[in-house]
Amino acid sequence: MPDIQFRLVAVVRCSGALEAIRDELAAFMRDRAEPLLKRGAPPGCGAIIEHCSVSDDTLELEIRSDRFVRAHDALLRLKNGLSRLLARHRIGIRAIEIKSYEVSLEWDTSIKLKRLPFVRTLKHEDGRLTLVLDVDYAALERRIPDRLLKLLEDKREAASWKGKSEHWELLFESEHRQWKFDKDPTEEMVKRGWIVHAAGRGQWIYGPQPTRIFRAFEQILIEEVLRPLGYVEMIFPKFVPWAVWKRSGHAKGIYPEVYYVCTPKTRDPEYWEDVMDYYKITNEVPLDMIMERIEPVGGMCYAQCPPFWVFIQGRTIPDDILPIKVFDRSGTSHRYESGGLHGIERLDEFHRVEIVWIGTKEQVISHAEELRMRYRRIFDEILDIEWREAWVTPWFMAQEGRAGLAELKEVGTVDFEAILPYSGKWLEFQNVSINGDKYPKGFSVKLQSGKELWSGCSGVGLERWAAVLLAQKGLEPHNWSDALRRYTGDRLPGVFRFL
Amino acid sequence: MPDIQFRLVAVVRCSGALEAIRDELAAFMRDRAEPLLKRGAPPGCGAIIEHCSVSDDTLELEIRSDRFVRAHDALLRLKNGLSRLLARHRIGIRAIEIKSYEVSLEWDTSIKLKRLPFVRTLKHEDGRLTLVLDVDYAALERRIPDRLLKLLEDKREAASWKGKSEHWELLFESEHRQWKFDKDPTEEMVKRGWIVHAAGRGQWIYGPQPTRIFRAFEQILIEEVLRPLGYVEMIFPKFVPWAVWKRSGHAKGIYPEVYYVCTPKTRDPEYWEDVMDYYKITNEVPLDMIMERIEPVGGMCYAQCPPFWVFIQGRTIPDDILPIKVFDRSGTSHRYESGGLHGIERLDEFHRVEIVWIGTKEQVISHAEELRMRYRRIFDEILDIEWREAWVTPWFMAQEGRAGLAELKEVGTVDFEAILPYSGKWLEFQNVSINGDKYPKGFSVKLQSGKELWSGCSGVGLERWAAVLLAQKGLEPHNWSDALRRYTGDRLPGVFRFL
Repeated sequence: MPDIQFRLVAVVRCSGALEAIRDELAAFMRDRAEPLLKRGAPPGCGAIIEHCSVSDDTLELEIRSDRFVRAHDALLRLKNGLSRLLARHRIGIRAIEIKSYEVSLEWDTSIKLKRLPFVRTLKHEDGRLTLVLDVDYAALERRIPDRLLKLLEDKREAASWKGKSEHWELLFESEHRQWKFDKDPTEEMVKRGWIVHAAGRGQWIYGPQPTRIFRAFEQILIEEVLRPLGYVEMIFPKFVPWAVWKRSGHAKGIYPEVYYVCTPKTRDPEYWEDVMDYYKITNEVPLDMIMERIEPVGGMCYAQCPPFWVFIQGRTIPDDILPIKVFDRSGTSHRYESGGLHGIERLDEFHRVEIVWIGTKEQVISHAEELRMRYRRIFDEILDIEWREAWVTPWFMAQEGRAGLAELKEVGTVDFEAILPYSGKWLEFQNVSINGDKYPKGFSVKLQSGKELWSGCSGVGLERWAAVLLAQKGLEPHNWSDALRRYTGDRLPGVFRFL
Repeated sequence: MPDIQFRLVAVVRCSGALEAIRDELAAFMRDRAEPLLKRGAPPGCGAIIEHCSVSDDTLELEIRSDRFVRAHDALLRLKNGLSRLLARHRIGIRAIEIKSYEVSLEWDTSIKLKRLPFVRTLKHEDGRLTLVLDVDYAALERRIPDRLLKLLEDKREAASWKGKSEHWELLFESEHRQWKFDKDPTEEMVKRGWIVHAAGRGQWIYGPQPTRIFRAFEQILIEEVLRPLGYVEMIFPKFVPWAVWKRSGHAKGIYPEVYYVCTPKTRDPEYWEDVMDYYKITNEVPLDMIMERIEPVGGMCYAQCPPFWVFIQGRTIPDDILPIKVFDRSGTSHRYESGGLHGIERLDEFHRVEIVWIGTKEQVISHAEELRMRYRRIFDEILDIEWREAWVTPWFMAQEGRAGLAELKEVGTVDFEAILPYSGKWLEFQNVSINGDKYPKGFSVKLQSGKELWSGCSGVGLERWAAVLLAQKGLEPHNWSDALRRYTGDRLPGVFRFL
């Protein structure tokens, strides 16, 4: 049996009786169809018509094939010639029904498959997987079987990655620094009333002191990185509709972590009156009634740059405006994080400055290097912390199962990690990513010269910077560097006291 | 018939036969229950037991009442005495079933009521409304009937407000200014590539030029208002859980306009695998599958200050730290606006600096005045625009149907409105609100001295300021005041060109 086998039974319903042209049909299948179903395949390979029968106004076809001309491709190929033949007898094709479609392939992995979309039954036996598909002709036209096989391949590849640790390669280590603190900065900030846990999961309200620190970080970033490197500020949207995540690739896999956004089916107040009535009577928000009245339209900002790309989507850019350098700091990001939320180090709601650069491959790679050197100076001379840099597999490559080492030399992510003295753990607090042509391709952005367009992005998480600074240096400005105090001031503002 | 009448039939199921104590029960109903059901009511008023019968281990009671001791209150009052009596015979109450509960009240309005929560049938005839309730004993304990009647009262009051225009009283008019532009600034910005419509509804991506203008507005606000008045910056959360909107009062009525937020029921990747599989095969996000896997937990930021209040919720504040003055500019606000979205003047996603002050009544009122004078100077000397100020009914009062003119002298909103030359329409671009004790009460914040704690808030919508400035003065900085150009620069940054 070949490594993969397709067996398709289709019924072609026509507008007139076929009995009279039975011989002509047989000749067509023999002389015209056979070569058509082998075109492009190696000798001895391709699809064959195993059975063909006519009854009244229907033609039933059984097609078997290997990987070279998949049975559904064979059917699609047949349709045109068949239509022309029938047309000569003033007969049209009314519908094509898929009576059964079975795919069987080698499957020597331990991956557990419970169910798959468009699959009625699924059997795993003796190193082969047999799928009975649940598809109609339109689904064949949409290439559903091909995508299904691609999905299986991806799952096999992903499984082979599982267990193996992600790529991690040390690039740089800073000098050792003197730590001034050995406590958990979140706990200490709570104790001092600098932050209060908000009403939501993994969410804090920041008082005047940490806000001053965050704004100081932004100012440092602007003065030390963004202004000297020629960045300009933009405002990226913060609600992200599906259309954006489809193009950015996020729609492939972020579902478990999304803060979903739904809008009212209508804003007619009458439509909502019973929800309001219910609330006013019970003081409880009627969740079920709400779920019936809303529809999911996307999510809250997750990665910060994807919605920016709509600004240049479908456009062609003149080479002479490259590299483009923009940043955004206009709002929050939200991720449904795993249960073990921990202080300001791992949050559902966080604040980030997102930096995006776009150019030719050479420009993007060399700019990433420049950016890294600028960051180093900040961590060295202003934050005065101990950190290291590592070359890691970026999430979107790991997820798509492509992370060949050759590719990894250019496209990929540098993570900046710092040790937290109170726990001894390393925390990733910053990254610089070269995304290759991923975004320009996804959003159909082209370069006038026809050269390949690349991009990079770098997210500066304000909470992460704070977590690292405060863990190593403590909450007292007099223990920080003079350079940092130039931005924060010597005293942080206090406003609140309670009894 | 009294203006309102209650008729309740309840069945009390006991743990033993009641036949033997039938006489004792009759005596209890006559001697003890009768006075209990009239306690506190005017002479001749209150509840009466119309019928009482015993059969096996059940006692059936029919109670009729007027507004003074509502029938369900009567039942709750009876329960204790009855329990004590039964206990003497070693009999317990197993359950109380509500066989029927009918409420009839005067209802001489034209309000159309189709259905109400906890109401089985609803009849409107001859100026009376008759409701057959669908309640159990627990619902009576939760005072559902009282809240239902309150809701009807609110609906009657709201209907009497409908049609009447909101309160609007001119307070101030600026001098006439020379307009430099007569076009729609949104269209003009689109034409110049300053803004691009984002992938979502009522949502824009702001290029470098408008972003520079927004940041200039923030800087003006900081230098001219916030710093001189002693404000400090905080960071308010941007996802808002129901708990916050229940306390702020928004849960009463914002449903038609909310961008709802739902979180995954679990972030277990296996739970989401078929969603990812479906997407990978079809390139379509399976909305129905998603809706089954998420639950509604709140909404995106709507009004900006409510989630701040959790910072001081339940606390007692020493008088000497008043007035407290904080602001937030850390993210976006989202409203599902009506169909006729128009440019940057009416948006689903917008950017606002939110200003909050808290103090005694006198402090809050006089601070609002100070704030208004500071704003005036900005509009006069820096934006150089033509505007007016009006005293209006704030949304939360209109919605709750309380807007007596006496109250309106202190609690309420000043709207700043400016004319848009291209349309001749007035646009509200700014407000200053005195919210009275609404938020401190809602979030249980107290003052050490026991004095009443008040608060105010003022939202500075960056898009609205821009809409007004650009409509009156155009997009060329040389047509703006020197004072404004000090913040924006003489040339706005341009980065993008397209073919």
